[in-house]
Amino acid sequence: MARTAEHLIEQAQKDNMAYELVQSLTTEIGPRLAGTSAEARARNWAINKLELLGFENVHVESFEVPVWLRGRERARIVSPFPQPLRITALGGSTSTGEHGVEGEVVGFPSLDSLIEADPARVEGKIVFVDEVMARKRDGSGYGVAVQKRLRTAYVAQQLGAIAALIRSVGTSSHRFPHTGQMRPLSDSAGKRGVPMAALSAPDADQLSRVLSYGGPVVVHLLVTSEVRAPAQSGNVIAEIRGRDSPEEIVLAGAHLDSWDLGTGAVDDGAGVGIVIAASRLLLEHLPEAPRRTIRLVLFGSEEVGFVGARDYSERYSAELPQHIVAAESDFGAGDIWRFDTRFPAEQLPYATEIARILSPLDIVRGNNTAYGGPDLRYMRESGVPVITLLQDGTDYFDLHHTPDDTLDKIGPDDLHQNVAAWAAFLYLAAETEVYFRDAEAASVTGTP
Amino acid sequence: MARTAEHLIEQAQKDNMAYELVQSLTTEIGPRLAGTSAEARARNWAINKLELLGFENVHVESFEVPVWLRGRERARIVSPFPQPLRITALGGSTSTGEHGVEGEVVGFPSLDSLIEADPARVEGKIVFVDEVMARKRDGSGYGVAVQKRLRTAYVAQQLGAIAALIRSVGTSSHRFPHTGQMRPLSDSAGKRGVPMAALSAPDADQLSRVLSYGGPVVVHLLVTSEVRAPAQSGNVIAEIRGRDSPEEIVLAGAHLDSWDLGTGAVDDGAGVGIVIAASRLLLEHLPEAPRRTIRLVLFGSEEVGFVGARDYSERYSAELPQHIVAAESDFGAGDIWRFDTRFPAEQLPYATEIARILSPLDIVRGNNTAYGGPDLRYMRESGVPVITLLQDGTDYFDLHHTPDDTLDKIGPDDLHQNVAAWAAFLYLAAETEVYFRDAEAASVTGTP
Repeated sequence: MARTAEHLIEQAQKDNMAYELVQSLTTEIGPRLAGTSAEARARNWAINKLELLGFENVHVESFEVPVWLRGRERARIVSPFPQPLRITALGGSTSTGEHGVEGEVVGFPSLDSLIEADPARVEGKIVFVDEVMARKRDGSGYGVAVQKRLRTAYVAQQLGAIAALIRSVGTSSHRFPHTGQMRPLSDSAGKRGVPMAALSAPDADQLSRVLSYGGPVVVHLLVTSEVRAPAQSGNVIAEIRGRDSPEEIVLAGAHLDSWDLGTGAVDDGAGVGIVIAASRLLLEHLPEAPRRTIRLVLFGSEEVGFVGARDYSERYSAELPQHIVAAESDFGAGDIWRFDTRFPAEQLPYATEIARILSPLDIVRGNNTAYGGPDLRYMRESGVPVITLLQDGTDYFDLHHTPDDTLDKIGPDDLHQNVAAWAAFLYLAAETEVYFRDAEAASVTGTP
Repeated sequence: MARTAEHLIEQAQKDNMAYELVQSLTTEIGPRLAGTSAEARARNWAINKLELLGFENVHVESFEVPVWLRGRERARIVSPFPQPLRITALGGSTSTGEHGVEGEVVGFPSLDSLIEADPARVEGKIVFVDEVMARKRDGSGYGVAVQKRLRTAYVAQQLGAIAALIRSVGTSSHRFPHTGQMRPLSDSAGKRGVPMAALSAPDADQLSRVLSYGGPVVVHLLVTSEVRAPAQSGNVIAEIRGRDSPEEIVLAGAHLDSWDLGTGAVDDGAGVGIVIAASRLLLEHLPEAPRRTIRLVLFGSEEVGFVGARDYSERYSAELPQHIVAAESDFGAGDIWRFDTRFPAEQLPYATEIARILSPLDIVRGNNTAYGGPDLRYMRESGVPVITLLQDGTDYFDLHHTPDDTLDKIGPDDLHQNVAAWAAFLYLAAETEVYFRDAEAASVTGTP
């Protein structure tokens, strides 16, 4: 088995399919927001590619999502120093109406300081939360920073503010505001929050500097948005059916939808390219299918609240105990540097064996508290073992959710190492007789 | 004299005034397009700072400029792959009207290939000139690339096109289209050209890729713009009056206006900061004024066609023979690496002496065909000797004329070396008895 995995790794070094797929998806579809016709075209694109490449059981599993659409967005400092600010609305933001809102800005260094604010300071004003996200190789700055995006609009509403601005959740030093979803309607106790927009880092610096002069700062904010009736979205499924135990699933995921500002190259065209190309290597280079089924899931509507992930885990709730292991590629185009698992203790020796085979790719063995990926959340919580082939995410949040997430940020050879690691992992997981679950799968909790 | 110059160089290393000025200008004024109220506020800003710093003869010299204002700008590929494109209108572009124009795109690799095109290929279409600008330390890629910006709209109009798109004149790999002036009305035989916009580099890549599929590509382009009646602009003047020969002028220039997209930090807040801070060092550290007058000129309306430069050279045409030497800082915040001159041959030994004094700053002696700076064009053509303290411009065109030209792209200490070189040069030029002109100044031509 190790030799076959090594052969796949070797083949991956000369395989440009992952890049070609990202190029094709980002060029022919471009942005593909959840629930739009562009996302539907992306599903058709995927179906065509996957059938052409020889996968089995290629189909769409449909579900509905509410559709939020960006309208006009514009902000300016009215006084003391009149000038425009670059913003973008956060997904789910309410509208200011066509005339916008105008108010004095009250700044907070963090979400926590806003939460603790005296409502008298905030009422009738525009809050500005200027928390800076940390740049980390493992992307761990995001988990902290994203709270600001998820919660500010609701906290601000509760305190009587008329609108909210945040420093973008992201690390770009360029003048790109980062979009992203606010807390979904279902989680926010029916409140829709105040209109909320993100400032690019240079604009957050500027607003902060203007506030530091000490006088009142008045901003005009226009954010229009539209919520449409729920529309069709879906997950795209494709398989390499297992030769011995087809009912046992090794799941490889990525997500097909993207934010509307860029063309979704690193988020998550790269993941789509990597998992398809890696599985395709197995189809092409193995004499027969592996023992277990490899199931590709290209999730829909990830960006707007993991809607495809929820649909999948509900649809397959009865079969989840046969999901042997799941992984997702959704962290850009950087090299993989760490292999994390979330296995029962007795299965860790095989994790060590996989890590040994991956080590020539400069991948180190990581921890046993793998996150797996955003679309694996519900599976993980219901006890499906997950792994993470953790990519170097140092620069990922420079592009994430910005207009700058475009194909040119990925080089043609950048994905080889990812494809190699994924091909080896998928083969090893699908071929082995090792069972990555506890004897009693249901006893594995989601929060170790 | 050399020791005094060296003392000024030393003082400059601990002087943060240049940065503080850029910070103040870009924060308190922000973008300052020629002829707008923002440019007027910038003049007031400059007057206040220059008076406060102790300069003499501080005043505005007003003139009028036609005002072109950006309106809405939006483009999308209609077919075969519907998606938005990021554009910005070029300064002076005509309007498509509120409904925009739609047409098939015909691509050209260069302006020259468009010029030679058969009108039958172009008529009724949108032309796309995809010429790539070269990245060079001395910025020499700009001279070539800018022709595309200046001329495409008129060439396209002559060939019967309905609109024009160009790959941005600039080197940014980010999704920022670069604006900039088309050929001014006065130079274009009364023709106003077709509506014209620049695509960011990633968008030009994308459009080019879509064209490479071979089928017809239809784009919808909306560019609205407005031309207002001529409005007031002006140059801001300040002096250190010469103690012996006040009628002899050593001119230090920069320009106060900026494009509307960024806050004009590198173009040309940096230059404004550098020349003021360098002159201020002389005021502060010399026991008495230098022999000759140092005249600061902060030009207005540079970006829209060197209107302030023209006003200055017309206003002072009689005094230009007393302009001993002129220099401008308008190339960002990079370190100076070369000292170019445009002196008569007999004055070159003193150029060598200045170069020797600048050499500890890692500045090498350059050529004797100095350009001087955009606002020195008319002076140079009428025989005023110019010099260039040439900055490293490798990255300058990543920011130039984009929204990303903001303060954060300059570090607080980045301007020290510039200020040092400028202070030393201004002092040496103003103190020396060397006369940088030919005996018969009028005989020096503008094109050696």
